[in-house]
Amino acid sequence: MSYKNKINPDLVKERKKCSFNTLELTHLIDGGVEKTNERKSRESFFLDDASLRSKVPLEYLSHKEKYEEAVRQSCLLFRKVQELQNQGKGGMDNFREILGGQLGSAILKDGNPLTLHYVMFIPTLMGQGTLEQQAEWIQKAWSCDIIGTYAQTELGHGTFIRGLETIATYDSKTEEFVLNSPTITSYKWWPGGLGHSANYAVVVAQLHTQGKNHGIHPFIVQLRDEETHVPLPGIKIGEIGCKLGMNSTNNGYLGFENVRIPRTHMLMKNSRVLPDGTYVQSPSNKLTYGTMIFVRVVLVQDASTYLKKACTIATRYSAVRHQSQIKPDEPEPQILDYLTQQNKLFPQLAACFSFQYAAAWLWDTYNNVTGELETGQLENLPELHAAACVLKAVCTADAARGIETLRLSCGGHGYMTSSNLPSTYGLVTAMCTYEGENTVLLLQTARFLIKCWQNPQSLQSLPSCKYLVHALNNKLPFQKSVDWIISALQKTAAGKIELANRRINERVNKGMAYEDAWNNTSIELVQAAELHGRTLIVEIYLATIQKLQQKISTELNTVLNQLLQLYAVDTILRCSGDILKFTELQGKDIEALQTWLEELLTLIRPNAVGIVDSFDFRDEVLASALGSYDGNVYERLLEEAQKSPLNAEPVNHKVLSPSYHDSLEDGIGRKRSFVDRKI
Amino acid sequence: MSYKNKINPDLVKERKKCSFNTLELTHLIDGGVEKTNERKSRESFFLDDASLRSKVPLEYLSHKEKYEEAVRQSCLLFRKVQELQNQGKGGMDNFREILGGQLGSAILKDGNPLTLHYVMFIPTLMGQGTLEQQAEWIQKAWSCDIIGTYAQTELGHGTFIRGLETIATYDSKTEEFVLNSPTITSYKWWPGGLGHSANYAVVVAQLHTQGKNHGIHPFIVQLRDEETHVPLPGIKIGEIGCKLGMNSTNNGYLGFENVRIPRTHMLMKNSRVLPDGTYVQSPSNKLTYGTMIFVRVVLVQDASTYLKKACTIATRYSAVRHQSQIKPDEPEPQILDYLTQQNKLFPQLAACFSFQYAAAWLWDTYNNVTGELETGQLENLPELHAAACVLKAVCTADAARGIETLRLSCGGHGYMTSSNLPSTYGLVTAMCTYEGENTVLLLQTARFLIKCWQNPQSLQSLPSCKYLVHALNNKLPFQKSVDWIISALQKTAAGKIELANRRINERVNKGMAYEDAWNNTSIELVQAAELHGRTLIVEIYLATIQKLQQKISTELNTVLNQLLQLYAVDTILRCSGDILKFTELQGKDIEALQTWLEELLTLIRPNAVGIVDSFDFRDEVLASALGSYDGNVYERLLEEAQKSPLNAEPVNHKVLSPSYHDSLEDGIGRKRSFVDRKI
Repeated sequence: MSYKNKINPDLVKERKKCSFNTLELTHLIDGGVEKTNERKSRESFFLDDASLRSKVPLEYLSHKEKYEEAVRQSCLLFRKVQELQNQGKGGMDNFREILGGQLGSAILKDGNPLTLHYVMFIPTLMGQGTLEQQAEWIQKAWSCDIIGTYAQTELGHGTFIRGLETIATYDSKTEEFVLNSPTITSYKWWPGGLGHSANYAVVVAQLHTQGKNHGIHPFIVQLRDEETHVPLPGIKIGEIGCKLGMNSTNNGYLGFENVRIPRTHMLMKNSRVLPDGTYVQSPSNKLTYGTMIFVRVVLVQDASTYLKKACTIATRYSAVRHQSQIKPDEPEPQILDYLTQQNKLFPQLAACFSFQYAAAWLWDTYNNVTGELETGQLENLPELHAAACVLKAVCTADAARGIETLRLSCGGHGYMTSSNLPSTYGLVTAMCTYEGENTVLLLQTARFLIKCWQNPQSLQSLPSCKYLVHALNNKLPFQKSVDWIISALQKTAAGKIELANRRINERVNKGMAYEDAWNNTSIELVQAAELHGRTLIVEIYLATIQKLQQKISTELNTVLNQLLQLYAVDTILRCSGDILKFTELQGKDIEALQTWLEELLTLIRPNAVGIVDSFDFRDEVLASALGSYDGNVYERLLEEAQKSPLNAEPVNHKVLSPSYHDSLEDGIGRKRSFVDRKI
Repeated sequence: MSYKNKINPDLVKERKKCSFNTLELTHLIDGGVEKTNERKSRESFFLDDASLRSKVPLEYLSHKEKYEEAVRQSCLLFRKVQELQNQGKGGMDNFREILGGQLGSAILKDGNPLTLHYVMFIPTLMGQGTLEQQAEWIQKAWSCDIIGTYAQTELGHGTFIRGLETIATYDSKTEEFVLNSPTITSYKWWPGGLGHSANYAVVVAQLHTQGKNHGIHPFIVQLRDEETHVPLPGIKIGEIGCKLGMNSTNNGYLGFENVRIPRTHMLMKNSRVLPDGTYVQSPSNKLTYGTMIFVRVVLVQDASTYLKKACTIATRYSAVRHQSQIKPDEPEPQILDYLTQQNKLFPQLAACFSFQYAAAWLWDTYNNVTGELETGQLENLPELHAAACVLKAVCTADAARGIETLRLSCGGHGYMTSSNLPSTYGLVTAMCTYEGENTVLLLQTARFLIKCWQNPQSLQSLPSCKYLVHALNNKLPFQKSVDWIISALQKTAAGKIELANRRINERVNKGMAYEDAWNNTSIELVQAAELHGRTLIVEIYLATIQKLQQKISTELNTVLNQLLQLYAVDTILRCSGDILKFTELQGKDIEALQTWLEELLTLIRPNAVGIVDSFDFRDEVLASALGSYDGNVYERLLEEAQKSPLNAEPVNHKVLSPSYHDSLEDGIGRKRSFVDRKI
């Protein structure tokens, strides 16, 4: 079509205004020129391959067709990944990046039924299998002789994994474990690929041996015949049905009825069961912490990336869309010129960077602490855990809300599937629940904070909590600086922790059990943890920018600083009630902050399109009629509509024949109805 | 299945605890015993009819199949509605209630392609056609000789209807209008049923006659041949593709190329074009205001009803779901016992009542003011308009956010389509955009408030704004009463309006044009309008409860009062920053409010299931595995999963044949791949 070589003039104008080199920011985000080039060549390798694309957009297919198309694509995708590996390019990391990241979701737009095979099944074998077990299973899995998944969550239990009900009872006579699902709630529920794709699974179950329950342990269980794919006896299996998103991931359910597996199918790197049934405990149950925290690092990173995607779509659309009037008799302005629109968009733009830096910080901390773990040093683990919990909870929740704000900022067109905003929200809102439900995670961080508060001497050695020692004594005359905002946030977070602690004590003093006092104070505990998390994010952002300062151009530095300020100001204004309550801040300071916010929006306005351009998403990754680089929004919306199979015929057969009208007329008694004839 | 005659024991226990008569509340909500009976018999008439149900849940069908199933159902539905009418039961109201309300969405779960025929096409003919036009068209439409839709919104314009681009140029030589879509952005976009269902439409276009543009006017345009349904020459028509929700409504696009219609096809009740092309203006352009406001009343009502539905689902699920531990060594508690869960659920429960009462108030006000209009009295129209704007914006936004909070409170299971929470959100979030985008509406209310503020003498006569006269002078020592909260909200709303007004003036005094000053102050203007709206909602709630007091039992009175208090406390705590800034409230007052909130949650806890039972939704209306009356959540989740066509076969053919594994093995070079053979 003719528009394809044309850039929308509004975007041309916006790009001319940009005050910094967008390529410099792209390289900074990727981690250097080379990384950018690697990414681009990887994107070309996959996205230029027409065979990976679906002929009809997924949303028009039936649920079964979606799954089958996903199987086709994922097979092709893996072949290409293995091609890369045969060329010596990448191993597991490569898989993760391609499957979990933007590239994977650009190809398999609604989920990949084989992802868990690579990102959970194989890693669990590697992490929790003995050397013998690894030798037996990993090659088979790697070469796809077997396809696995990871079955932990049950109908009745998610985040609280100690409550899982599936039982593996050791039978020393046959040296086998017998797996059973004693209740309906003990059915496994959710594992990706479990429905119809996998023939093996790592199953997490309560280990019973010698009449005693030793808690949850992982087992390798064959689910289906390797040749016929028919479910094995005692295996009740299927998919769980449609969901808000990810309808091609083939999430499944699984029940056991006296399913026997050899003793050697328990993954025994940590704890073991000897042939006679003796249980030998793991030296430290903190060792399995690592993976869990790693996944949360990935989620914080993903929250940032998906938010960048949504920002790109909404910002480009807002530059192209003209509507209403600021002044009568002037042309309709770009909606990006409305301050209310800027206030929906730019704080999200700033959050993209905040979450990216938080993820990087968490990744470094994770690596340091796991390094220490190997030397037997465990004392920084609780702080890492607390930070991972709160950052996962805050970043995923804010990203989901942010994406929804961005979607709504695109008006009706944001409701179109072809905007790609609905499914982006669908993916990100799921993150609020999986890998630790957000409220539960915030309460875990709160538990750590209260413990620290009650032992102030411990605070000194905790980088993320050190501020709690002195924060309540800070004096805070207003200054227009991020440092000042951080101090105010710190004092407020400390105040909220102190208050929650005081509330618990008051309740205990009135005779309440500590646990009940905790539950009765939990609203304030969650809020305290959340504010601690936000404070940490702003601190990390500032520290990151300070480190970068010498390495980047003045122009880029200015932009990143404006975004940092916006993030900080927006954060503090959103909790102005707490700030006013816990600090000596005055109403007039709030007014000064509001003015600062408005100034920042105006400063960021000319660079908005430049900033999202720097994220450098290919159009195939954005997959959005509203967000493409050329900005031909309306042409693309119409073009996408043409892909609807309903539009392949000018007249739908159901309404073509007179029976359509007959059925409507039937009520007033004219003809025999369509319905009578058809049903 | 065996569970069907069994009520979950947790729900039995909850129902025993309930302190009030749930039937009394049901009757109160319906408007009396008779109304309840009417509703129930209407529900039976439609929902007991198996032919109206889909054989396979919609979510498993392809987009085309969904549409065709919706056509089948809507034909059947209309026949039944007409049956009712032949029995003398109901006219237009009946249609609206059945199509727009909960009953309609229980039958056509993903939208009805014929709704607009009844709720927009026919009413527009009636409201804007001359008597001759009504005589010509209404019977044809009523009997479905023709099927119509209402085509206003375009690709380039939504809420700002003055900007519509479709042109109807009068040609006095032939006494015809010539319709054209001069740009791509002028294509009609969104009208329900336009894609393939309707053969006529009311089209809103810029009227050009005698060389002059007279603004937008409605025209009746034939789109398709009445017999063959083939689009007429010059009509470019199709559906717009998939959306976040409502995928069976057959939303369409429409472009015109020199489409000629007779002069008499302009709806001329208000303005007219004479045969020679002379334009005769409407006596008052305020006359068309009515319908717009009426639709907003309906939306506030719908916001309440959908929120009730989501509350029912999440509350029953939370009573049945057990998870984690409050105290070690005690059984896992119902999640409804966690204070954090109560804080997610109960404020939404309270909001259901707030929105319901706000809708009732708005309906009364609407009737009063339209009554005045007929006597030529126009002065209360602006206040009605301002109230309708802010109530629509606040109630739809809060309901959407509330439903999402409730969905997330159900953890992973809330992500399942079978919970019915995702599609409930999909329906309600759309309301934030259509019939006036929420931010635009809030700014319209703000414009009214600023105008009033600048003319304080006008305030006295405006019931919803009277408080602005004195609110800034209120003295507010803390009291634990809703009256006190209302005073504090009023003072804060007044403070925010005063501040926004001051900001505009400051900017104008610095030399800024008023319009630019307005835009630069718009963040604060939106916030001021929002707070005004929330204040209004709490006031209405209190006034309603006071009126009811004599008519209801003490027990019910207590419950409704607790919910009112909760709504008020939750509202004021959510804007605690503004409260602290604009009133003399202190930090310790905030603590007192927080304690009050926690007390209310505890008081409401035992009645939570009873309250949602009173909403009296039939299981078919809830359509949720998590929300059914019997609470057999896990059985139903599994049962719903069995309906997936993928589960009809134990092995999917795509993964049955060795080719599935071949394709995976191909990368390591063993066999010729599945992909090579298939593509």
